[in-house]
Amino acid sequence: MRYYPDPAREIDLVRVNRAIEEAFAEHARGRVQMPPKLYVTLERGDFRTMPGYIPSLGIAGVKIVNVHPGNPARHLPTVMALTVILDVETGRPESLLNATDLTDLRTGAAGAVAAKYLSPRRSVRLGLVGAGRQARAQVMAVGKELSIREVLVWSRTRESAERFCGNLPGVPCRSEDLEAVCDCDILITTTPSREPLVRDRWISEGTHINAIGADAPGKQELDPAILQRASVFVDDILQAVHSGEVNVPIARGLYTKEQIAGTLGEVVTGRKGRKSVDEITVFDSTGLAIQDLAIAAIARESAEGIDLPFLSFSHDGSGESPGKVSSHGDVVSGEKKRKKG
Amino acid sequence: MRYYPDPAREIDLVRVNRAIEEAFAEHARGRVQMPPKLYVTLERGDFRTMPGYIPSLGIAGVKIVNVHPGNPARHLPTVMALTVILDVETGRPESLLNATDLTDLRTGAAGAVAAKYLSPRRSVRLGLVGAGRQARAQVMAVGKELSIREVLVWSRTRESAERFCGNLPGVPCRSEDLEAVCDCDILITTTPSREPLVRDRWISEGTHINAIGADAPGKQELDPAILQRASVFVDDILQAVHSGEVNVPIARGLYTKEQIAGTLGEVVTGRKGRKSVDEITVFDSTGLAIQDLAIAAIARESAEGIDLPFLSFSHDGSGESPGKVSSHGDVVSGEKKRKKG
Repeated sequence: MRYYPDPAREIDLVRVNRAIEEAFAEHARGRVQMPPKLYVTLERGDFRTMPGYIPSLGIAGVKIVNVHPGNPARHLPTVMALTVILDVETGRPESLLNATDLTDLRTGAAGAVAAKYLSPRRSVRLGLVGAGRQARAQVMAVGKELSIREVLVWSRTRESAERFCGNLPGVPCRSEDLEAVCDCDILITTTPSREPLVRDRWISEGTHINAIGADAPGKQELDPAILQRASVFVDDILQAVHSGEVNVPIARGLYTKEQIAGTLGEVVTGRKGRKSVDEITVFDSTGLAIQDLAIAAIARESAEGIDLPFLSFSHDGSGESPGKVSSHGDVVSGEKKRKKG
Repeated sequence: MRYYPDPAREIDLVRVNRAIEEAFAEHARGRVQMPPKLYVTLERGDFRTMPGYIPSLGIAGVKIVNVHPGNPARHLPTVMALTVILDVETGRPESLLNATDLTDLRTGAAGAVAAKYLSPRRSVRLGLVGAGRQARAQVMAVGKELSIREVLVWSRTRESAERFCGNLPGVPCRSEDLEAVCDCDILITTTPSREPLVRDRWISEGTHINAIGADAPGKQELDPAILQRASVFVDDILQAVHSGEVNVPIARGLYTKEQIAGTLGEVVTGRKGRKSVDEITVFDSTGLAIQDLAIAAIARESAEGIDLPFLSFSHDGSGESPGKVSSHGDVVSGEKKRKKG
């Protein structure tokens, strides 16, 4: 068994986009297993358990991820994640990945895949509502698929929007008010809002929107009137109805499950898509276990890992004795040594 | 974050029994969170994802466990497991435990708690149907609650039954045929059978049965007529109906969910129980996530662990940089050093 403490550090974002695209395609083809995400509520947050299996990639496992909004005050990220990968042949725990950064990247990649297929323009002005880690991940991933002319950023404080731009190398970027940010080709919303921030009249025809922030019941970022005007594509119908951008409008009778235009996987496989350049399209992302597996498959190929003992002497004949418990973890590069642990 | 490769090695079985007893009591009091176990099917087996939270113990996490019947031919255990414990305050992954042996022990402990409350006798003759790892775990755990006079063992081969007895120190133990084994005070079935092995007429009044083997749809070990005569207690109603000893009889209309006498937690808290010394009682065990959390809470107090880096430099101010990834895991004893990782 091998642990990867920082598997996102050297990862190739183009490869991530392609892997996420393929995971969505397999989802549309009905070739993955993905039971519904389970939520456990803690006093100051929650954690979600996300198992899955992608046979075509030969990868199976579980991501465990928390959401604790008070964590930044403790100098901890709001969201932390760990992915456990099992050997599909034997069920043996094979890899553990710190999936905190990978979670940002796989969500960014889903936005990039949506933008690739649903944006009517290849050279785009990006509007960002929210200026946190996910906003950055979206820009980095979309930049691998489309040419970004400029980035307009709104955040609750102008300081955070300006700091965001300061940390974005090589792309013209400026802080704007909310309405001005919406005057763009691709709008990306990444806030934890529970009330609509983006008004219907601010959105022009032909805009594509990545609605990323809503990932739990009660969350929403867009005026439901936008959904009525748009073709809304989701990552997974059940998850979106439960916790995506459409969850509040559906619960309030302002939108229906039947109005959902399709899944991103159906878009990737060519079964669904944008109908005209004037149409407004929305990608409603909740985050799928198969995205976590797809990025884990890439990450562990190149990242540094620490070998850990797993089987005790009583279970196999390999001579890996419990005494080895007290030896130091063996640090190896993923490329150099691929011994199963 | 700390990894415990062999947390079962030095564990105190009496403490385990008490922790499991308390977990069942909290379950009956409605003070735990435990979403339904999720199954993912692989080509040669499956894996199950079991999240949970026990507020009174301050422990939350997920066990991931596979079942691959062909593994012994590859010199691997059929069942392997890993438990991830999260800090309930922040959701941060705190501990990883190799839960392969712990899974045996926590199931054994559930059987011991059931025997403690449901056996009408304190000095008992044990009958075992099945002579594998779980049979041994049951004997060891029951032996902490009751006085075991002798053990009668049936297995598919006499050799494995005799080997089982040879490895059981300090208790009179002999191999017997199936009918003779059933002439006992407490019968414990631990096979993966899909057809009833234990016939109704072999079971005397006053017998207590731990029906452990059935843990997936289609599995059963007892003639359904035994269930009709007995008071059947389960670990969890939903899980038992789905995958316990009662699952096949219920699916075939030979037993009903309404006939279930109660849960083990209700027995432990005194709300339900054996009604007379002549009654036949059955404990139908499927295995609960809260058992895995309760045993993990004990195990990590005393086991040796390996400290692993989790947060990278970009997420906290502690100076734990990604460069530390390439340093060796720091091995410490659980008692001596309790630094969070």
